[in-house]
Amino acid sequence: MRIGFIGLGIMGKPMAKNLLAADFDVTVFDLNTAAIQELAALGANPATSPAETAEGQDVIFTMLPAHPHVEAVLFGENGVAETVKQGAIVVDMSSISPVYSKQFAAQLAEKGVHFIDAPVSGGEPKAIDGTLAIMAGGQPNIYEKAYPALEAMGGQIILVGDTGSGTTAKLANQIMVNVNIAAMSEALVLAAKAGIDVEKMYQAIRGGLAGSAVLDAKVPLILERNFVAGGRIDINAKDLTNVLDTGSALGVSLPLSGQVLEMYEEMKAEGKGADDHGGLVQHYEKLAGIKVQKEVNAK
Amino acid sequence: MRIGFIGLGIMGKPMAKNLLAADFDVTVFDLNTAAIQELAALGANPATSPAETAEGQDVIFTMLPAHPHVEAVLFGENGVAETVKQGAIVVDMSSISPVYSKQFAAQLAEKGVHFIDAPVSGGEPKAIDGTLAIMAGGQPNIYEKAYPALEAMGGQIILVGDTGSGTTAKLANQIMVNVNIAAMSEALVLAAKAGIDVEKMYQAIRGGLAGSAVLDAKVPLILERNFVAGGRIDINAKDLTNVLDTGSALGVSLPLSGQVLEMYEEMKAEGKGADDHGGLVQHYEKLAGIKVQKEVNAK
Repeated sequence: MRIGFIGLGIMGKPMAKNLLAADFDVTVFDLNTAAIQELAALGANPATSPAETAEGQDVIFTMLPAHPHVEAVLFGENGVAETVKQGAIVVDMSSISPVYSKQFAAQLAEKGVHFIDAPVSGGEPKAIDGTLAIMAGGQPNIYEKAYPALEAMGGQIILVGDTGSGTTAKLANQIMVNVNIAAMSEALVLAAKAGIDVEKMYQAIRGGLAGSAVLDAKVPLILERNFVAGGRIDINAKDLTNVLDTGSALGVSLPLSGQVLEMYEEMKAEGKGADDHGGLVQHYEKLAGIKVQKEVNAK
Repeated sequence: MRIGFIGLGIMGKPMAKNLLAADFDVTVFDLNTAAIQELAALGANPATSPAETAEGQDVIFTMLPAHPHVEAVLFGENGVAETVKQGAIVVDMSSISPVYSKQFAAQLAEKGVHFIDAPVSGGEPKAIDGTLAIMAGGQPNIYEKAYPALEAMGGQIILVGDTGSGTTAKLANQIMVNVNIAAMSEALVLAAKAGIDVEKMYQAIRGGLAGSAVLDAKVPLILERNFVAGGRIDINAKDLTNVLDTGSALGVSLPLSGQVLEMYEEMKAEGKGADDHGGLVQHYEKLAGIKVQKEVNAK
């Protein structure tokens, strides 16, 4: 299988590396030429545009920040659509609104090109390990053709349904991740302000119904005051904007998602957009006049 | 160790049974005499009042709905305080505000009686199995004396800190449980309204950062439209009221907890207060005009 891969950022770079490690023939492109060179040194074919990346490939992956980037890479000047061969599969692994997944799928179908939306969850660590959760939408026979390449990047890979099902599942995923982070923040700041040992409390409750992947991933980082992303606040704010746009289009009330987005927008305005989303705890801390940390709360 | 146990409800009854199974001498009381008889048939000594339950005991457990019940049982007519011996330990396992835990501890201290606040998490199944998460607050030497009895009821038992630390940890726990349920509800209803297979989506995301104990406990029940409590909405509303009272007293902003409490109050007004808190999804479904269920979303 000949593969094109466009978007070598925090997530895309290790994902492309895992395709190379699985012995696929991979052509890569990014606006950051240093990232192209890094992959080329590992055996990738360097390209100078999305069009060149796509030419002659069986599957073209895109892993980009938001839907305008995907649109430009697919349909802009020197875009994928100029060169992609009939019967090829475009797999967009970016986190975008299902509205755009369906639009891109329709535009590509006019050229006889297939489309799978396949956003991921798990962050940089799982991108590096090749154990990402991949939630896909599209036709089963097309999904099966792309599956061997997805398998090189993912741990848990599930075809959720038709086109747009993958990006919808990712929106649902992002609601839970970010609202769970806010729930954790309210709990930690209340406990810290009450003067109890937050680390002991975490140990006491993590095995019960309050337990979550968010709690286990973020509490140790918060106690060390480590807000290096990880999952950036500005990227998660973009996801929650897509959540609310989709909710508005479908007529679904999402008050907690809206409230967390407001907090993220405030933090972006304060220059904290590049912080990890676990850094949301700082928003609550500022209002409460306290910090959740080991030193303060330890006996 | 001679034990008194007051409050034989959904939680208290199996907890008292586990104390009997561990060969403690247990005297029991509840307003529901059938529950007393059920325990007496298993070897407990039946009592006719809190005062009679407490007389001569080393440790007196209370497991009651809210702080007024605890106050009445401890300090009301025929209450524990009338008969409890000096040096005894009152262990209140109810979920109440730490404000009251501290007040009760101070009142008992005047009589030379010790106090531990030790609320639990894990619900009826873990109460039956004797594997509750128990988060305790109080003096370490007193906690250690009560520990053998706690061990008969709990799986994970942790002394979080001084008096009130257990009830504070429980409030933090309830914030996360209930806000995580709301987050799940927003995610499930958005996905269902978008027409995707919610069960497949759940399988796709449960292993990632969106994963939680709430998700694993509640999604299967929601898909089967099973809202039998479990954790009742009205009891969790009481817990969130304690959360907001405590936040207000300490100066901690808790907007998501407040919003979930509002939804619970609406559901109580609609006669759904006895539903499981996983039934919160119905609030979102009503607004979206859809139901999250197997039949509707399955292909």
